[in-house]
Amino acid sequence: MTSFLVDALVTTPPLAEVFSDAAVVQTMLDVEAAAARVQARLQIIPADAAVAIEAAAQAGFYDAAQLAAAARRSATPVVPLVAALSDRVGVVDATHAGFVHWGLTSQDVSDTALVLTVRRSLDILSAHHAELARALVTMSDQHAASVMLGRTLLQPATPITFGLKVAGWYGAVMRSWEAVSRAADDALVLQCGGAAGTLAALGAEGPSVADALAAELGLRNPGVSWHAHRDRLAAVITALSIYTASLGKMARDVSLLMQAEVGEVSEPGGASSAMPHKRNPAGCAVILAAAGRMPGLAAGYLTAMIQEHERGLGGWQLEWPTFSAVMQTSGSALAAAVELITGLSVNSDRMRANLAATNGTVCAERVQMLLTAALGRERARSVIEQSLTAVRDRGMSFSAAIVSQTDAADVMRAHPDALVPERYTGVAEVMRQRLLNRCP
Amino acid sequence: MTSFLVDALVTTPPLAEVFSDAAVVQTMLDVEAAAARVQARLQIIPADAAVAIEAAAQAGFYDAAQLAAAARRSATPVVPLVAALSDRVGVVDATHAGFVHWGLTSQDVSDTALVLTVRRSLDILSAHHAELARALVTMSDQHAASVMLGRTLLQPATPITFGLKVAGWYGAVMRSWEAVSRAADDALVLQCGGAAGTLAALGAEGPSVADALAAELGLRNPGVSWHAHRDRLAAVITALSIYTASLGKMARDVSLLMQAEVGEVSEPGGASSAMPHKRNPAGCAVILAAAGRMPGLAAGYLTAMIQEHERGLGGWQLEWPTFSAVMQTSGSALAAAVELITGLSVNSDRMRANLAATNGTVCAERVQMLLTAALGRERARSVIEQSLTAVRDRGMSFSAAIVSQTDAADVMRAHPDALVPERYTGVAEVMRQRLLNRCP
Amino acid sequence: MTSFLVDALVTTPPLAEVFSDAAVVQTMLDVEAAAARVQARLQIIPADAAVAIEAAAQAGFYDAAQLAAAARRSATPVVPLVAALSDRVGVVDATHAGFVHWGLTSQDVSDTALVLTVRRSLDILSAHHAELARALVTMSDQHAASVMLGRTLLQPATPITFGLKVAGWYGAVMRSWEAVSRAADDALVLQCGGAAGTLAALGAEGPSVADALAAELGLRNPGVSWHAHRDRLAAVITALSIYTASLGKMARDVSLLMQAEVGEVSEPGGASSAMPHKRNPAGCAVILAAAGRMPGLAAGYLTAMIQEHERGLGGWQLEWPTFSAVMQTSGSALAAAVELITGLSVNSDRMRANLAATNGTVCAERVQMLLTAALGRERARSVIEQSLTAVRDRGMSFSAAIVSQTDAADVMRAHPDALVPERYTGVAEVMRQRLLNRCP
Amino acid sequence: MTSFLVDALVTTPPLAEVFSDAAVVQTMLDVEAAAARVQARLQIIPADAAVAIEAAAQAGFYDAAQLAAAARRSATPVVPLVAALSDRVGVVDATHAGFVHWGLTSQDVSDTALVLTVRRSLDILSAHHAELARALVTMSDQHAASVMLGRTLLQPATPITFGLKVAGWYGAVMRSWEAVSRAADDALVLQCGGAAGTLAALGAEGPSVADALAAELGLRNPGVSWHAHRDRLAAVITALSIYTASLGKMARDVSLLMQAEVGEVSEPGGASSAMPHKRNPAGCAVILAAAGRMPGLAAGYLTAMIQEHERGLGGWQLEWPTFSAVMQTSGSALAAAVELITGLSVNSDRMRANLAATNGTVCAERVQMLLTAALGRERARSVIEQSLTAVRDRGMSFSAAIVSQTDAADVMRAHPDALVPERYTGVAEVMRQRLLNRCP
Repeated sequence: MTSFLVDALVTTPPLAEVFSDAAVVQTMLDVEAAAARVQARLQIIPADAAVAIEAAAQAGFYDAAQLAAAARRSATPVVPLVAALSDRVGVVDATHAGFVHWGLTSQDVSDTALVLTVRRSLDILSAHHAELARALVTMSDQHAASVMLGRTLLQPATPITFGLKVAGWYGAVMRSWEAVSRAADDALVLQCGGAAGTLAALGAEGPSVADALAAELGLRNPGVSWHAHRDRLAAVITALSIYTASLGKMARDVSLLMQAEVGEVSEPGGASSAMPHKRNPAGCAVILAAAGRMPGLAAGYLTAMIQEHERGLGGWQLEWPTFSAVMQTSGSALAAAVELITGLSVNSDRMRANLAATNGTVCAERVQMLLTAALGRERARSVIEQSLTAVRDRGMSFSAAIVSQTDAADVMRAHPDALVPERYTGVAEVMRQRLLNRCP
Repeated sequence: MTSFLVDALVTTPPLAEVFSDAAVVQTMLDVEAAAARVQARLQIIPADAAVAIEAAAQAGFYDAAQLAAAARRSATPVVPLVAALSDRVGVVDATHAGFVHWGLTSQDVSDTALVLTVRRSLDILSAHHAELARALVTMSDQHAASVMLGRTLLQPATPITFGLKVAGWYGAVMRSWEAVSRAADDALVLQCGGAAGTLAALGAEGPSVADALAAELGLRNPGVSWHAHRDRLAAVITALSIYTASLGKMARDVSLLMQAEVGEVSEPGGASSAMPHKRNPAGCAVILAAAGRMPGLAAGYLTAMIQEHERGLGGWQLEWPTFSAVMQTSGSALAAAVELITGLSVNSDRMRANLAATNGTVCAERVQMLLTAALGRERARSVIEQSLTAVRDRGMSFSAAIVSQTDAADVMRAHPDALVPERYTGVAEVMRQRLLNRCP
Repeated sequence: MTSFLVDALVTTPPLAEVFSDAAVVQTMLDVEAAAARVQARLQIIPADAAVAIEAAAQAGFYDAAQLAAAARRSATPVVPLVAALSDRVGVVDATHAGFVHWGLTSQDVSDTALVLTVRRSLDILSAHHAELARALVTMSDQHAASVMLGRTLLQPATPITFGLKVAGWYGAVMRSWEAVSRAADDALVLQCGGAAGTLAALGAEGPSVADALAAELGLRNPGVSWHAHRDRLAAVITALSIYTASLGKMARDVSLLMQAEVGEVSEPGGASSAMPHKRNPAGCAVILAAAGRMPGLAAGYLTAMIQEHERGLGGWQLEWPTFSAVMQTSGSALAAAVELITGLSVNSDRMRANLAATNGTVCAERVQMLLTAALGRERARSVIEQSLTAVRDRGMSFSAAIVSQTDAADVMRAHPDALVPERYTGVAEVMRQRLLNRCP
Repeated sequence: MTSFLVDALVTTPPLAEVFSDAAVVQTMLDVEAAAARVQARLQIIPADAAVAIEAAAQAGFYDAAQLAAAARRSATPVVPLVAALSDRVGVVDATHAGFVHWGLTSQDVSDTALVLTVRRSLDILSAHHAELARALVTMSDQHAASVMLGRTLLQPATPITFGLKVAGWYGAVMRSWEAVSRAADDALVLQCGGAAGTLAALGAEGPSVADALAAELGLRNPGVSWHAHRDRLAAVITALSIYTASLGKMARDVSLLMQAEVGEVSEPGGASSAMPHKRNPAGCAVILAAAGRMPGLAAGYLTAMIQEHERGLGGWQLEWPTFSAVMQTSGSALAAAVELITGLSVNSDRMRANLAATNGTVCAERVQMLLTAALGRERARSVIEQSLTAVRDRGMSFSAAIVSQTDAADVMRAHPDALVPERYTGVAEVMRQRLLNRCP
């Protein structure tokens, strides 16, 4: 059944391809073919059998819908796939058929194919991540001096720069991706253990087969079975969930900045079906949908880690659909993030206007500290409170309100720029450089 | 991209069809066509326009992959679908094109189509549920008198009947389904509110259009918009998660009873790719995988309920993929449950043997109460403890150990059946009848 | 260990009290005492024993920390509590001690006490819910005519009234609470089944004991054991999660409306430790924190429903902490919601100003429909697009831009109020009345 | 409110202490005192003020319940704590009071205190982890040669050793802990940024204050603010969830092996309140409850990472209760795991008996491979199937059934130990050594 539409916002075509029937069947067959090849090379199975197996290991020969139906009777599609592969090999020469899947168990093939599929999807994400990283650096540098309101608890706080804000996104995205990479390096390893993980079926040659198979598939051989220990794969999933959350934080910020009343940034956006004037933050929507979806997927995987004995019942079986959803959902968010950031318009005028609209109170913290140091806590508080009331109730500027008190005015005179937002961004630029990994 | 395989254990072909591109596009078009039809009938749009719209409202005319790609730019596939539909209508007569989607907003179409799609999937689940219910009643009746070990914290407790155990599953499944039905009755209603939910675009005729559209689609019209209030849909999802958990509890029990060392039931099961002697509880695996997957999906939906203002950003957009996964996953579990229960072999001999293997201790609670009443708590405890030690360390039967103490022997003589498990099932049968909704 | 602080934002003192050691121990003892009382009345245990048990059933006699430590060795605090209670009773008369917990199992006490505790917390929530409901009705009525921007995907859509928005919150809150009530009615029932749920230990009198115990505790007796079937309790938790999400949606809206740049509402709010000018939406923060916490708690419970055989291992044991967190978290959100709504200031001037700031485009949908009907889709689109560009790029008003085109001007002349937001709220008032359950 | 009981199975006294009011208030005060000390040293605030602040920074002076109540009005307990601390300092000398919390923001104190608290709890976990690791190594070594059934999908597979099984647990636990450590090293860093994260209030001296404060508290100074970027803390939580799942997998295995019908291991266990013969796997229950609880807590945290602008609304506020639950729940599981493994009895006789009970079929895979190599796939299959039928239906031994076929008998004669489970454990020992990090 094709289903582009339902998942339109939680996948991309290249990722959907990686998890398509054609790709998944082929990857499983690749593992079988590689196993046959290396065992022939090690003289464990006849060379002719390996040739026949390799010839039959083409996804096009098999009907994914039938395999899927049969999978429900054996709790994995590998059992019917091995049977179909054996049958096809058997047509050529009955004796070869017996050497299909020699010494392996379904989970060896299923897990190794999963690892290869996850690796392939991560390659796609990796390219997008690099693009996003570059775009963020560029945007941060362009706006190193764009002063804007910092906002805490959704209220105006003190000034920051947009360059720092973008560098903050960059920092989170970079740290999160590094964790994904590290987890992938640990997790994406060969699974080869046979029935109960001991390689018993291959006798003394088990370890050599595993080594050769790993080399053939370009994977690391961990030297032990991990059939029922899923901690490393779980770490990939949680790292991707954190990565997507880092994108989600960025999208939340952008969508808030893009509100008409704020208007500081704007994504190219999309149309509405009803309202001609609308320009929707569709990229943010895609990213936030992904960020909302990932934690539940991660929780499902974490729950499923409690796998019984040498192969789990239930937990193991939900891993493929979970990885499929996780890779496509995070990849969809990442693709949207690249478009979002590369296409974002930034309106520094509105940033300045929004700062100005605070009527000076954006620097109230600074004034309070100056007054406290000079006049003591009680008096400082009282001046500030009266001034804020004047701003709120009489529309006075904060500056005028403060200097209407003689003692405060004296203090302020010594600090003529105390109410200039551009002079109250602290070490924003130092932090920005650090977040971009430059030594300031 | 077809993808039977990845989701083999978490969908069924009929459910995959309901969420296929063809079906989803058609359902959205059905809503558009119905809206045109009723508005023509109410003389809001020209009759010819409605005819033209209906003629163009065939899924086959549209390319789902293109719609999906465009959906990412508008945060919903409805925007490009309306554009494509308008274009096609416009080919016939340019003036008709303007009446496509008249007075509606994307979410009206997306939500109403979602409701229709969920209803269609629930019809499939409903039939399976009825089958499962019948099979459980039959099995419970057949084993009304099959006495077996009750087990608590995975340890032998006191005797129950297998009929009661099955009735317990039945009770949970029936209650859980009733909750699904109730939630669906509440939730599966028309969404028709236009741009911000007030039906403003349709002026005075808005409510009549909504009424007529509801009637046309066989849905209830709630009379208000629920664009950003997803409580009723959430209740469908949580009810299905609870339902699937009820199936999961049953599958856990079956899989435990099917362990070789217990051997009390056995599902037809599937083969292993490596081990010829294996018979795997594949049905249990499918159900338990679903039960492991649903809570995370439900959590994702609950999180996404925090939708902004009159239409959410992010939360709303993850609903289609979540419903798609929820309906298919729970439906897959249910299909597996029907096969599991209708195909289950029950081995009452092993049940008796496992009872016997407790060496009489399965009735220790009873003996303790008899002795306590007759000899007091301290003496009762001491007799019981010595006897259990004798059973454990010297392989004595519990009965022999007890009566080796004169005072205890006297008590036991008055209760000759105190150690007969079949006589210690309490009101198991009464409860069984109640669980099957029969007044005993 | 007291711990007010860590949970300050996710509990309230009355709810913390319900789950305090004193209350929980007493509730468990109440169940034991009630069981003794009814069994004495039914002449199953000596009347004197019941008196002694009742006398000893006072929380003050027991050390919760010791019980908690011992609970870890028996997977439930009931085992050490029964032992301690028996010991205390035994001090008075050794024979009475044997009749403590007669015929019951730990789970009977633990589950029934849980049910009583949940009921007690729901009473607290219920009172708050009624208060919130009243406040919402009042506020909706007050602002029936306060026209404001509807906002979709965080962008200006078409006008609504604040009264409708509040009624939408009300509708969701009322429906969600009804679901909580219904779930509680189903779930809050007696658990009385003895060791494996069959009441075997009480022989023929089991059902009478259960009936009498239910009456004594003011609970319904479902007549069957539900030791390992947690669907009804799960429904309480998911309903509370949905309820809290309905509060969360309201808080999200309020916090967005309270942004300085929007300024349409304002909660009394709290101070900042650094910035004197800040007024933080602390109530929204409390509610949103709760709404973020509940889905994970619900997912944990749903996962834990897969309980083994006649008493679960692991799943059952996480229920008390989960219910404790769920009741306190949702109750905390509800308490905050009452304060939020009763204390909310609404600024209709800012609502009008924000509408005006759209420069007329808030009615673009209406204009587009009028032009489409009169001039056809292509021409309408072109006029609209040119006008929006004029608004965007040249700061023109939408109205002036439209009428600068002769044909459009003719159309607009026939609809003089087409650009008046107050005239474009559709059936907002009808829907508002319906949401408030009034028949308009 | 004390509440030992409700959380009895999801905390331990030392961890409850770390999150107690006394400890949390003191930790926050420690941060304030350290900030004052270093600022006095840097001559930013008067030395006397620092002395006064330090003197007042004693948890005993403050009422946690009052702070908690006030916290609800400012969305953090730090605001009222700073006020109370200032008031107390002000009693001594009014001018000192103004220097409390100088240049800091609430989140600096809250986050840094959180980091210190998490570090303290990790120290407790770390000690338990080391103990567990030692116990697992010892047990694995003791049972290097204890051959037992491998079990896949809860059915007998091929033989393994108990030593390998334990080493598998060890491997997962060690890898998972390493991930916890790594995440903690990254995450447990100073937060010091002031109001909007730029250290503006401290002017040029901001970075020096941050450096000195980090040194004073024994934390690393990341040099940038991370107010709204929670990726590193999230990684600690997900790593702990994975760690707990690794414990959960072990507990699931133990509880299954401890079933009466399997009987291969046994934990000291606890009593039942009703059934004298029971010995409950209470340690497993505690661990599995924790493992069931963690994924939902992790999902809640991941969801909460979408924090707005420079300080989140809702997401940030749920972090303390989440960390509190996460640290205590995982620590409780770990404490139980130490007791479980150090107290576990292993019954190798039952392991052998359960192997024997398979009647030889546990080596069916091996026989099939021998026959396939010698007689071809078709003939091998047919012999195996007939033999398995003979075992199943006629109780024959697998060995006798195989050799009743002449051609198969010939093959088997060449492999006299083909049906000896002890000879079919493959490289179990090699893998075991590798898992224990020994180079074999």
